[in-house]
Amino acid sequence: MKLLIVGGVAGGASAAARARRLSEDAQIILFERGPDVSFANCGLPYYIGGEIAERKKLLVTSPEMLRSRFKLDVRIRSSVEAIDRLAKIVRVRDLATGREYEEAYDKLILATGAAPFRPSIPGIDLPGVFTLRNLEDTDRIKEQVHRGVKQAVLVGGGFICLELAENFIRRGISTTVVEKNGQILTPFDNEMTTPIVQELANKGVTLPLGQAAEALEQTADGLVVCLNSGQRIPAQLVIFGIGVRPENKLAVDAGLEVGPRGGIRVNDHLQTSDPDIFAVGDAIEVKDVVSGDAIQVPLAGPANRQGRIAADNVLGRSVTYRGTQGTAILGFFERTAAITGASEKVLRRVNRPFRMIYVHPAHHAGYYPGAEGMTLKLLFDPDSGRVLGAQAVGGAGVDKRIDVLAVAIQAGMTVFDLEEMELAYAPQYGSAKDPINMAGFVAAGLLRGDHPQIDVAALMALPPNARPFLLDVRTPEEFANGSILDAVNIPVDELRSHLKDLPADREIAAYCQVGQRGYLATRILRQAGFNASNVSGGYKTFLLYRQGNDSIQ
Amino acid sequence: MKLLIVGGVAGGASAAARARRLSEDAQIILFERGPDVSFANCGLPYYIGGEIAERKKLLVTSPEMLRSRFKLDVRIRSSVEAIDRLAKIVRVRDLATGREYEEAYDKLILATGAAPFRPSIPGIDLPGVFTLRNLEDTDRIKEQVHRGVKQAVLVGGGFICLELAENFIRRGISTTVVEKNGQILTPFDNEMTTPIVQELANKGVTLPLGQAAEALEQTADGLVVCLNSGQRIPAQLVIFGIGVRPENKLAVDAGLEVGPRGGIRVNDHLQTSDPDIFAVGDAIEVKDVVSGDAIQVPLAGPANRQGRIAADNVLGRSVTYRGTQGTAILGFFERTAAITGASEKVLRRVNRPFRMIYVHPAHHAGYYPGAEGMTLKLLFDPDSGRVLGAQAVGGAGVDKRIDVLAVAIQAGMTVFDLEEMELAYAPQYGSAKDPINMAGFVAAGLLRGDHPQIDVAALMALPPNARPFLLDVRTPEEFANGSILDAVNIPVDELRSHLKDLPADREIAAYCQVGQRGYLATRILRQAGFNASNVSGGYKTFLLYRQGNDSIQ
Repeated sequence: MKLLIVGGVAGGASAAARARRLSEDAQIILFERGPDVSFANCGLPYYIGGEIAERKKLLVTSPEMLRSRFKLDVRIRSSVEAIDRLAKIVRVRDLATGREYEEAYDKLILATGAAPFRPSIPGIDLPGVFTLRNLEDTDRIKEQVHRGVKQAVLVGGGFICLELAENFIRRGISTTVVEKNGQILTPFDNEMTTPIVQELANKGVTLPLGQAAEALEQTADGLVVCLNSGQRIPAQLVIFGIGVRPENKLAVDAGLEVGPRGGIRVNDHLQTSDPDIFAVGDAIEVKDVVSGDAIQVPLAGPANRQGRIAADNVLGRSVTYRGTQGTAILGFFERTAAITGASEKVLRRVNRPFRMIYVHPAHHAGYYPGAEGMTLKLLFDPDSGRVLGAQAVGGAGVDKRIDVLAVAIQAGMTVFDLEEMELAYAPQYGSAKDPINMAGFVAAGLLRGDHPQIDVAALMALPPNARPFLLDVRTPEEFANGSILDAVNIPVDELRSHLKDLPADREIAAYCQVGQRGYLATRILRQAGFNASNVSGGYKTFLLYRQGNDSIQ
Repeated sequence: MKLLIVGGVAGGASAAARARRLSEDAQIILFERGPDVSFANCGLPYYIGGEIAERKKLLVTSPEMLRSRFKLDVRIRSSVEAIDRLAKIVRVRDLATGREYEEAYDKLILATGAAPFRPSIPGIDLPGVFTLRNLEDTDRIKEQVHRGVKQAVLVGGGFICLELAENFIRRGISTTVVEKNGQILTPFDNEMTTPIVQELANKGVTLPLGQAAEALEQTADGLVVCLNSGQRIPAQLVIFGIGVRPENKLAVDAGLEVGPRGGIRVNDHLQTSDPDIFAVGDAIEVKDVVSGDAIQVPLAGPANRQGRIAADNVLGRSVTYRGTQGTAILGFFERTAAITGASEKVLRRVNRPFRMIYVHPAHHAGYYPGAEGMTLKLLFDPDSGRVLGAQAVGGAGVDKRIDVLAVAIQAGMTVFDLEEMELAYAPQYGSAKDPINMAGFVAAGLLRGDHPQIDVAALMALPPNARPFLLDVRTPEEFANGSILDAVNIPVDELRSHLKDLPADREIAAYCQVGQRGYLATRILRQAGFNASNVSGGYKTFLLYRQGNDSIQ
């Protein structure tokens, strides 16, 4: 068995190590175009910022180590230029010498990754304009930073630009994030990004949302980024992080099937349209396990698992990849935003019926010092209650809840299962009713009909004359600090004695700060014969929507 | 419907609030013997230590609040003395006035809790000797602490005494924990408690394991705790935390069934042997979902859920309690130990076949600063791979992994599912191959036969002449710092060229520091025809066993 692997980072290196563990006899050649194998891609922004102090920390392994430990024939600075599928031969170019040669294969794994997209706008090739993919890019950006950057512009409001923004701010660099859409972090639903938008502002990051970089110009001081609004932002460093494109040239030239967005098509054994060629990682199209869509997910976790599974299949095991559920997480200073499964907008796009709820619990018992609030949005099937997706934003403990919900999605669990979850509780870690249980209670109450809820967005979308009677059941002090539209205030503790003051012929939407008092109010009202529901997540959810809209300049 | 609830803390208060949400019309009377309802039981040690500064933080709610918001008839300082099941009447004593009266019921929920066990040893009633159950105990202990305690003895090595130990150490009190068994934290397997034992020592806690408190004596300076070893430990404060006993007198007197350890027997609707009487919380016997055993689990999370479910059933919904999986967590300074599902010793006791593995991953990417190590022990079915139990000990991130595994157990997932889990990864939060994935790989490799493993305990239990050939595949430097028994050192990177030096006719047990190089060595050896296995978790697991044994005085 002679196995060739093209690409030596996450997917390729995983495939190579796994293949060797399965077979001491296989001849395994790993081609990597760059000088490094298996580096810590996700650490690059933190090395640029200095949070990760040593460059060598980013080198997860080395060609020498792969050679000695895994008996791999590692060929760095070696570019695979073409595949002859009939002859089962690849053509390789040694980038150091320029020499070209052929290498035959029994099986081939493509782990070619994805390249950052560089838009064809004027000035894109000016010095000081970068994209960030590998250690060489990192070194160049770090060198630029060390030369003294006062102002940086990050084009794109995705994970990598926000991670870079944190690191630039830590270094005292005045930072602007330009996002042409009205929203950062597009995998999330817009309102869930509000706390991150606010934190960007708190940390001094300028965020012209809904504006595109149209051109770059050289000036005496460095660069100017010209936005389509006419705004001109000076910078000594500009990084484009507006998405990646699968590196599919090798595959396309060889006639392998690719999807509409360029991802190499694979079956659930990660086999391309040529049964002797497998593909893994950022270069491929995978199945979204919730929506069924073919998607491209450039994340390290899936790439690693795919590498393993491709090696299994190459070496005669029949192992399937179950697809990807898009679990992802962002840290921005002390804030965390995480997602798993389908977002509301994906569910709307694929026309999948769903219900959703919001809760705003503390990450651990409120009576223990240091409890941090979070917002958790849960999306689920309206009939079975099956969990379809979740997003959380807050501080500590967000990662834990999204991981728990990622497992729930993988297991096909329902909101009724969330009610029952027995999670670890001591006051430093959680609550007797964990945020997950709370989300389960609220969602299950909705499906059982005990706890009818109305979404803030749906409420706001109604014309004023079609709106329900809005009942704020918080205290007068809370009410005085802001309320939803034309709400009337009756504190929940006085509600039972004011039922006669409420309209019997109108729908009533009750709300409180986070939803708990609104829930009790809804119960009281419904049992008294009113057609009442609770505004899911209460005033806090309303603020996420309102402040989200306010933040668009 | 007239519902009486006896006990107003976790289970009782949850039942009352739920019952009101379901029915505005029900007459609900909540009897609580003490002065407080629904206080934060799990916070008491931290209030004693001052970590929680204000006493009012411990009061989750108040009788007034339950009255005004939930229209509950809350009667504090009211002791229910007897149940007349035929007449469906309880006799109540108002502890303030001494007045006794009767109250009829349609349904009754017992949430009487459990009382700390006070052994009948000489001196148990001396001043300065306490147990900790409620706010009154807490106030007395805190008063004693404020009077100036230099030395404290905590009898019992369970959760509550270790939490108290942390708080006493923070206050500069010299602290001894006396545990009569050879192990602290008995729900855990012994070797998994080693890091906590070490941390106790690091923080200056004296821990005479395997010694019992036999008597207490009054001295001029305070007290002396006399151990069965003859040791005498001076103290001004002694707290017994050696387990709790269900408060079952009311139930037993009324002829309700109780289990062998005193827990009130309930069916899966939490109904006692009298269909009009339900019981919840620390007072009842519940089903261990993994072992099937009837157990008593005095934890707040289950009590809260049971309260909810009992109220559902009382009000005509048929809702079942699925049982308890014993998820629990301890924080001791920066260390965390957590467990879910069955331990090794429980599985041995119930004769359930299992396999187990250890991994020692970092809680997040090693290349990002602040990665903390943890040890994760996973127990699973040898045929299906179904996860049966897990324990983890370390620092940050332990709670998250145990929660993920708690969900896996609830969902009936297997070690093969753990391999596939798509958890949130950015370098501050996890790894591309999360500790959960790693545990899945190692366990699945064991079951698939790719990665035969031997347990340290099994290895150590073998007579010397039956032991496998021990092969240490670490570097010479690591080997020089300590090795397992009579191991021979061949670094993994040199193994392929030293195969001829190994015995072809003996079993070989390879090991490294944590198991990863040992795994590769095992693969190399088996493919070369050797009968090799990997010592699960490597030298680090060996140290847990050895240092665990060393720590018993």
